[in-house]
Amino acid sequence: MRICILGGDGYLGWPTSMHFAARGHDVLTIDNMGKRLWEARAGVAPLMPIKPFPDRVADWNASYQGKPIRHAVIDIATDYAGLRDVLTDFQPDAIVHYAEQPSAPYSMAGRAEAVDTQQNNVIGTLNLMFVIRDHCPGVHLIKLGTMGEYGTPNIDIEEGWLDVTHNGRQDRVLFPKRPGSLYHLTKVHDSANLEFACRVWGFRVTDLNQGVVYGIETDEIAADPANRATSFHYDSVFGTVLNRFVVQAAIGQPLTVYGKGGQTRGYLNIRDTLRCVELAAMNPADEGEFRVFNQFTEQFSVQQLADRVAAVGRSMGLYVTTQHIPNPRAEMEEHYYNAKHSALPALGLKPNLLTDAMLRDMIAKVTDNRDLVLDSHIMPSIRWDQRPARPKIVRGAA
Amino acid sequence: MRICILGGDGYLGWPTSMHFAARGHDVLTIDNMGKRLWEARAGVAPLMPIKPFPDRVADWNASYQGKPIRHAVIDIATDYAGLRDVLTDFQPDAIVHYAEQPSAPYSMAGRAEAVDTQQNNVIGTLNLMFVIRDHCPGVHLIKLGTMGEYGTPNIDIEEGWLDVTHNGRQDRVLFPKRPGSLYHLTKVHDSANLEFACRVWGFRVTDLNQGVVYGIETDEIAADPANRATSFHYDSVFGTVLNRFVVQAAIGQPLTVYGKGGQTRGYLNIRDTLRCVELAAMNPADEGEFRVFNQFTEQFSVQQLADRVAAVGRSMGLYVTTQHIPNPRAEMEEHYYNAKHSALPALGLKPNLLTDAMLRDMIAKVTDNRDLVLDSHIMPSIRWDQRPARPKIVRGAA
Repeated sequence: MRICILGGDGYLGWPTSMHFAARGHDVLTIDNMGKRLWEARAGVAPLMPIKPFPDRVADWNASYQGKPIRHAVIDIATDYAGLRDVLTDFQPDAIVHYAEQPSAPYSMAGRAEAVDTQQNNVIGTLNLMFVIRDHCPGVHLIKLGTMGEYGTPNIDIEEGWLDVTHNGRQDRVLFPKRPGSLYHLTKVHDSANLEFACRVWGFRVTDLNQGVVYGIETDEIAADPANRATSFHYDSVFGTVLNRFVVQAAIGQPLTVYGKGGQTRGYLNIRDTLRCVELAAMNPADEGEFRVFNQFTEQFSVQQLADRVAAVGRSMGLYVTTQHIPNPRAEMEEHYYNAKHSALPALGLKPNLLTDAMLRDMIAKVTDNRDLVLDSHIMPSIRWDQRPARPKIVRGAA
Repeated sequence: MRICILGGDGYLGWPTSMHFAARGHDVLTIDNMGKRLWEARAGVAPLMPIKPFPDRVADWNASYQGKPIRHAVIDIATDYAGLRDVLTDFQPDAIVHYAEQPSAPYSMAGRAEAVDTQQNNVIGTLNLMFVIRDHCPGVHLIKLGTMGEYGTPNIDIEEGWLDVTHNGRQDRVLFPKRPGSLYHLTKVHDSANLEFACRVWGFRVTDLNQGVVYGIETDEIAADPANRATSFHYDSVFGTVLNRFVVQAAIGQPLTVYGKGGQTRGYLNIRDTLRCVELAAMNPADEGEFRVFNQFTEQFSVQQLADRVAAVGRSMGLYVTTQHIPNPRAEMEEHYYNAKHSALPALGLKPNLLTDAMLRDMIAKVTDNRDLVLDSHIMPSIRWDQRPARPKIVRGAA
């Protein structure tokens, strides 16, 4: 399969690029270096140092006997012509689209960051839509969404679509969304634009509404972590909650639970992200189909995760405490949550569940690198309810 | 009341500015001249010549004894600082937001026009949100949406929100949308962003999901049509269907019905648009409330409108025929349609319904100006299903 990974320098994009290459596929990976810019602006860094994009690609190609990964530096939001030319030439069978500003807190830091996020994500996807329509018709687009698009409704969350009966009549509609940040809103906007493209232009789209991803390692990374590490974040801007708890346990900082900790979400291991994307690619959506999969394997509350990490950490001899801090986000802290996620298992997903052994392994790996942890950016500095204006994120952490 | 009209140079924005001024309100009207640029790019023009923005404001102020209208040329999508400064100074009680690229065909002409539309509309509204949050907290934002956001669902269309029962549980959700163009999608995106602002920042928002507007005249325009005319469009890019039929009847061109003509929508007279906006302004949304009104007075199918215009035209001695042409849009041509619209009447709206006398008056007014009609841009030149790429709108009409 010829597969293009957009956002190929990111936490998920880089492991995905290696994953497909290692399985014999032709991989073209594209990134605009935006994430490195956003990290620099927020003053944060991934745990492991990440080489420049061309070097990590060159390292992989030097060590691997199969087809080399090709790469390009293109900003899909501003360089339509560049994207058009490279995709017209490559003619992929599938495109995996991670090329978006991925942080909810970043999008809430201030006007400039909000505009940057919505412009990058929505216009980038719109440019991609026109490249596909006019130059790669028939390609299967696999676009990463987020479970956060749904919010926490008081009804069961279905996989993208909802059968509604109203006043005795029926219809099948896009599942109503209640996103929790200006970042999550961009994913909702993208989904709406792409559903239109399926309806009007016959696109084949799989929208992967992904839960919160955790984990450091995939098969390819494990074989050479020094050269292949992915950008694992634990900071309050780009870090996801379980990754942050693991780092806090490893460095002896209290696990910071936002608010009551009853916030429940879907979670999955980074290895399962790669497998889900692969399953989607191997089983493409039909022409005109806007197919939505809820991509996670287990539901946890934040408090449950803190308790799990604390217990495993203590079993390793670490001193682990939990601290409830004021919630910087606007979200319900106690709520109903029941999200369906049967489509990917039906295609063959065998989940890597969150075992104590898995947590122990993550904590041990971070402990090995604990000298690299910058502990001043773990506490949240961006509040959802800030008004009127306050100094922006780039001027200093809380 | 201190009221700011964004998009004050447009078909609705200019009459709205005069309407509020004539009723003793302090009016600040803002426009970026974008519509004049888009008209020029599409090669179309309004029926009556429209003076430059400062001149039409000066004409009004010279002829009117009350408070003068103030105006500013600001692009809200690119000049956040300009918008911030003028609104911080003016401190409006209400903001009426029409400042968006308003044409579905324009948004479907090609990539550049699609990006222009989504960037202008979504980022402009996002900038406005941050001005409000940080510099005009408490202001009531009246944002123009469109009934086209809903599409043509097989269930009754409620006013913005839907009570859902699913698997025995209940929630109140934003009414699911199925918009029909990349322009309509921008209105959906704006609505989603603004609902978030209500939820998280306590905004007061009224979202007016407006039907198709028709009409040439309001009280203020009738008093001096030569100096106060609004930009009445009949072309295939910016013209709405009833306005186009009236012009076609007046110039002896067949009324062009797209497809079968069973497409049913809500319609309203331009006089009712002004009254609806006034009613919303006088009855603001609560803090934190995202209030949606469906703003139309009657439902018609395209065929019904053609038949009405043809009958009235013939009664005036005109030779009027109807022609079915291939539908340039992707839309259902026969469908269920039942949209609720009781909120604005409950506030006091007394509709100006589409009477034969009203149609006769419109046809007569256009007939008086028939020498001004440019008849080469009435037939549609932009198709929704164009793929692969075709020459863009600016390079020639069909």
